[in-house]
Amino acid sequence: MPKFKLPPRLPFRCLGVAGLGLIGGSIAKALMPFDGLTLMAFDSDPDTVKEARKIKRFARVTMDADEFLSWPLDLAYLCLPVRRNVELIERMGRLKVPYAVTDSGSTKGPANEAALAFGLNFCGGHPIAGKEVAGFSHSKADLIRNCLFILTPDERFGPGQKELLWRLNNLHQLLGCRIRFISPSEHDRIYGLISHLPYLSASALAGTALAEGGHDILSWVGTGFKDSTRVGASPPAKWVEVAMENSDNLVTFLGSLINLLGHMRDIVGRKDAGELMALLDKISAFRRILAKE
Amino acid sequence: MPKFKLPPRLPFRCLGVAGLGLIGGSIAKALMPFDGLTLMAFDSDPDTVKEARKIKRFARVTMDADEFLSWPLDLAYLCLPVRRNVELIERMGRLKVPYAVTDSGSTKGPANEAALAFGLNFCGGHPIAGKEVAGFSHSKADLIRNCLFILTPDERFGPGQKELLWRLNNLHQLLGCRIRFISPSEHDRIYGLISHLPYLSASALAGTALAEGGHDILSWVGTGFKDSTRVGASPPAKWVEVAMENSDNLVTFLGSLINLLGHMRDIVGRKDAGELMALLDKISAFRRILAKE
Repeated sequence: MPKFKLPPRLPFRCLGVAGLGLIGGSIAKALMPFDGLTLMAFDSDPDTVKEARKIKRFARVTMDADEFLSWPLDLAYLCLPVRRNVELIERMGRLKVPYAVTDSGSTKGPANEAALAFGLNFCGGHPIAGKEVAGFSHSKADLIRNCLFILTPDERFGPGQKELLWRLNNLHQLLGCRIRFISPSEHDRIYGLISHLPYLSASALAGTALAEGGHDILSWVGTGFKDSTRVGASPPAKWVEVAMENSDNLVTFLGSLINLLGHMRDIVGRKDAGELMALLDKISAFRRILAKE
Repeated sequence: MPKFKLPPRLPFRCLGVAGLGLIGGSIAKALMPFDGLTLMAFDSDPDTVKEARKIKRFARVTMDADEFLSWPLDLAYLCLPVRRNVELIERMGRLKVPYAVTDSGSTKGPANEAALAFGLNFCGGHPIAGKEVAGFSHSKADLIRNCLFILTPDERFGPGQKELLWRLNNLHQLLGCRIRFISPSEHDRIYGLISHLPYLSASALAGTALAEGGHDILSWVGTGFKDSTRVGASPPAKWVEVAMENSDNLVTFLGSLINLLGHMRDIVGRKDAGELMALLDKISAFRRILAKE
């Protein structure tokens, strides 16, 4: 018997990516090798549209959001900044678009609420991948391969969401992601704590170095400072939106971080080596769980 | 004319390393290829001593500090934890040892003061290199190659320190380091800000994740959290000593960091996107200077 393997079949036939930035561009590029998929794209930046057209793998590319919304998609994949994803979802809702919708935003609550309010066929997602650079030119087909990918179903959408969830699960498995499901609000709490807070914390650390040491301080730094502040080099526009959308969680977690730093300052101020050791021992043992992976 | 190159000549003939940990072991291993150098070593850990003897490149290895101090060294290179370096310097001072002394500790003030008080021929140093692992087994010959190496002369030692400074400069240049000079107190301020503070900040961030999310939170993390907390995985014993020795600077810098985080919390709490953007724009532009290197 001849051995052959069926090529993987994507659960969507016509997929429109809105926003060809780092994530949207990378998802589009990862989808390009699959047969039988029509790819379409929207981006408001003329240079990005020009670059995308050059690749000749998008059936259509537009700078006009209304045109994008009118296309015969079966999945609209929103990869714009989180606020603009929400705005597009609201327009889709008013237009009563017939296709399924997902988004890749770093906060899941607001897009989910908007989609729910308008009765869209929606389920949000979030690839746990990123770099300190942005834009289509930095996107690459393997950015999300081997990454954790969170899908955020919400039972308030009713049983109809199950079919979309299953198809989004299959789509991202074919792109090499490891999938986990969690509710939008749990997602925003978890990633507020381990992504949005670390960004603000890294920025505050870099800001303290600038305030206390000036620009020249950078000539002295080693890998410790570089690693600890690396995410602080990201373009801030995205993070400002994320902080606004996830402000309740962030205010709580910033308070918790400030308390712990204040506790450390007290211990260091009274030179209590034993208490500092006990505190850091517990934390470093926790952090070393990751080092072992 | 035949072309040949003289092998580099080290400015020391008999060098004793006290403490074969990550730094001491790496410096010893980097020195091993040089001809005409007798290497000796002290370590209090039996396994390390056994491992060091196996290499057969140390003329002598001892677990007895008094024996080490009595050897015919021309340079004692102290790579013990900072408190134990200071203790050894005090013993050397009481013994009026005839050889030059340096140390590789992360804080420079206390060892420098002790050496000055006892009138030793001393100049401190600090390789800007490290990993989140410790011990001789993790040390390697190229750990400090291409690293920044700080030498901390102090004019209170008088003109006699110049000769030692010149020799230590040559020694570390031969090991491939880029050398800079700075006073011990300036060193402790600078590295309090860009090394000791980032360690405490990374630990506080990991500690907040543990307090607010429990151990399970680690299964959700991406590279942002990993990088931002990486130094927090280091064995804390070293850092507790460093924090005790550099407590005045750390109390100031922790206060500054706490203030900036509090300011961020206020901005996020009142959802002032414009003010957050202005703040983060300035910081990310500063941090991106490093990204370009």
